[in-house]
Amino acid sequence: MRMMVALLLLLTLTSPTTAQQVRSRGAWRGPDGLPHIDPARLESSLVTLAAIGRDPATGGMVRTAFSEADLEARHWLMSGLAAAGLTVRVDPAGNIIGRLEGTESGKGALVLGSHIDTVPQGGRFDGAVGVLTALEIVRSLGDLGIRPRHPIEVVSFTDEEGGLVGSRAWLGALTEADRAREYGGRLLAEALRGLGLDPARLDEARRNPSELAAYLEVHIEQGRLLEREGLQIGLVEGIVALDEYEITVLGQANHAGTTRMADRHDPMAAAARMVGEVREQVRRIGGDLVGTVGRIEARPGAPNVIPAEVRFTVDIRDPSRLVLDGAIQGLQERFARIAVEEGVEVVWRTLQRIPPAPADPRVLQALTEAVTAYGYPHRVMPSGAGHDAQSVAQLAPMGMLFVPSIGGVSHSPAEATRYEDIAAAGDVLLQAVLLLDGRFP
Amino acid sequence: MRMMVALLLLLTLTSPTTAQQVRSRGAWRGPDGLPHIDPARLESSLVTLAAIGRDPATGGMVRTAFSEADLEARHWLMSGLAAAGLTVRVDPAGNIIGRLEGTESGKGALVLGSHIDTVPQGGRFDGAVGVLTALEIVRSLGDLGIRPRHPIEVVSFTDEEGGLVGSRAWLGALTEADRAREYGGRLLAEALRGLGLDPARLDEARRNPSELAAYLEVHIEQGRLLEREGLQIGLVEGIVALDEYEITVLGQANHAGTTRMADRHDPMAAAARMVGEVREQVRRIGGDLVGTVGRIEARPGAPNVIPAEVRFTVDIRDPSRLVLDGAIQGLQERFARIAVEEGVEVVWRTLQRIPPAPADPRVLQALTEAVTAYGYPHRVMPSGAGHDAQSVAQLAPMGMLFVPSIGGVSHSPAEATRYEDIAAAGDVLLQAVLLLDGRFP
Repeated sequence: MRMMVALLLLLTLTSPTTAQQVRSRGAWRGPDGLPHIDPARLESSLVTLAAIGRDPATGGMVRTAFSEADLEARHWLMSGLAAAGLTVRVDPAGNIIGRLEGTESGKGALVLGSHIDTVPQGGRFDGAVGVLTALEIVRSLGDLGIRPRHPIEVVSFTDEEGGLVGSRAWLGALTEADRAREYGGRLLAEALRGLGLDPARLDEARRNPSELAAYLEVHIEQGRLLEREGLQIGLVEGIVALDEYEITVLGQANHAGTTRMADRHDPMAAAARMVGEVREQVRRIGGDLVGTVGRIEARPGAPNVIPAEVRFTVDIRDPSRLVLDGAIQGLQERFARIAVEEGVEVVWRTLQRIPPAPADPRVLQALTEAVTAYGYPHRVMPSGAGHDAQSVAQLAPMGMLFVPSIGGVSHSPAEATRYEDIAAAGDVLLQAVLLLDGRFP
Repeated sequence: MRMMVALLLLLTLTSPTTAQQVRSRGAWRGPDGLPHIDPARLESSLVTLAAIGRDPATGGMVRTAFSEADLEARHWLMSGLAAAGLTVRVDPAGNIIGRLEGTESGKGALVLGSHIDTVPQGGRFDGAVGVLTALEIVRSLGDLGIRPRHPIEVVSFTDEEGGLVGSRAWLGALTEADRAREYGGRLLAEALRGLGLDPARLDEARRNPSELAAYLEVHIEQGRLLEREGLQIGLVEGIVALDEYEITVLGQANHAGTTRMADRHDPMAAAARMVGEVREQVRRIGGDLVGTVGRIEARPGAPNVIPAEVRFTVDIRDPSRLVLDGAIQGLQERFARIAVEEGVEVVWRTLQRIPPAPADPRVLQALTEAVTAYGYPHRVMPSGAGHDAQSVAQLAPMGMLFVPSIGGVSHSPAEATRYEDIAAAGDVLLQAVLLLDGRFP
């Protein structure tokens, strides 16, 4: 693996299309006094990280948490953080934390972060953009000779893709289920031991709200809204509430040839109506509400047997818990009515209920002022996807920036974002950090 | 296994509820001159066979083709056929054939049969009723001192439940797929070797139409029509045509949280509409048409991902190929329209297309005359299920009798049929054999 990485780095460095050809000049201030990060340096970081765990056959990233590639990337990141003058530690949940002390003591940190793990065959921007923009902010502060009052922390959270594992550890919110499931074939305790950590100390990853002044994260949008509207920056007003249910429709298995249509208690016909209702109901309510049936199966699942039961999942999200609860109540009523009409039973099982995480108004204000100052085209929008920011929002005032996803694609080798948009987000983040450093107590 | 069977037989023989207590008196003629089989002897055969491969925990039959229990049952049946005076052979497809020569030479045989294999956790009547009623007919002819002009053959076909394997071998219709799939973990060649047969000779199982005068089969209805109408006998007018398709709906996988409803090409929403259309279309056409979606799955199948594709099966049956083709054409048009409206693609794959097998009018006439003579309540009806008779119908004039399934249940330990209904079918079959023996050239 190390040899392959070295080879890929060599290719990267000698390729005529890399960022290395654009000479880094460090952060700078424009004629209007606004600070700018170094876009070439940020792009170079992203290109370098993208070589670690890349599948040469597909171009996709295979840097799942705790994998060899993830370990490689973690070592690379820790070196980079240290080289930027940060004090680096790994907390008991495996989160990497690089810290720059502030000029005033006893203050909570301005925390900038995201994650560097990927889904299998994921993209190079999901997560990496947030961590490396954060690193670029620290480098830029150094270039500009600015030492903030607050400590700055650059954080790479453990296993975001596996369910916000590292950021939830900050809340002490990891459950028995989190500990009992597998992480690349190992239990969490074993996976943490693989990072040289003592799993018995996992609960010590928990952080006290007083340690954090604010949390800021840059992330790819993973949708098409910004691209469609020709914008560079999304100001996230909040991360949506998310409910996930498993619906089981119980009917009566029977012979597909000898059971007349009128004699059937067919859970498939009932489930088809319910799946249709999910979309109907969501469209009727409108707004930002989205609803998805991503999984469905019939048992016994033979073509010539009317199923005994059909199970499907419902994933439903809205920035407002109130709207979401109304939609769920509506679906429950409709499913119950369909069940009666079809002579079947319907059983709801809650898989998860995640509360909404609104952005902090002061942080959103600072981000808005910053993006307006640069004149980068932008809009306010919800985040339909979950992020580490939704965990940290329970500890500290939170804000997020989105950069456009080309074609709205993510979790795919085809995931892409323009480097100039990432640089714009870097500028906005840098200026927002300076504003918040001045304003927050 | 042998010991367990012996034990079960012992229990059977000593149980106060068994048929052994009703004394067999052999076949007899009523005052009206109509012949009657021996109901107690037939019930006893059924009870004995039901002890071979019975799961004591559930009461269900686990006598899948080529299993140890199936072998046990085959040996038992061959002994019974030989004891009834038949010449027993096993053809190269494993079909057991007991033959009684007729008084006139060069005539095709009147073939009576079904199967003794079961699905896992099946019932004791499915198949067994047909084979043991056939055996009872031969015994009754002996009791009554009747020697037919035509040869009589009692046949137990190999692996009916696995797809009419033995009866299709009579047509030379076994495909490469039949040979390449697994039979209890072994290829067909190995399974046949397990019966002491030479798989290289499999094609020699093929029979010439001139060898067969007619084929008659008694089977459980596997539906509720006879029970609901309070009837004892169903006269099968034909076995339905059956089409089975796999439908693939191709959409665009995307993030369940960040993809707005209007931006989706969701194969799940489209598939739900199509599944609904199957029932709509079938109900609109009405009659004997039935349509079933028994299997469905989404890929990738994660709750938080709009699927890339959804696959489901359509099983659709009607006595008339014309009606069936019309229904399929209607579904193709509707699915195509839904695909356009939903921005997805739909691909049809044919899994099987089985032609209808109408009963022969002369055989149906003889069965009708017989059942009418006895006065057993009856009706003419299609068979919605496939049977060995549909294979043999391609070689010889075919007729079938149904006996009621209590609650319409089959392929289940709860499958049941009243012994008096089976005895009635035995009488009708016996009289029909005599009528056909007289009428057929």
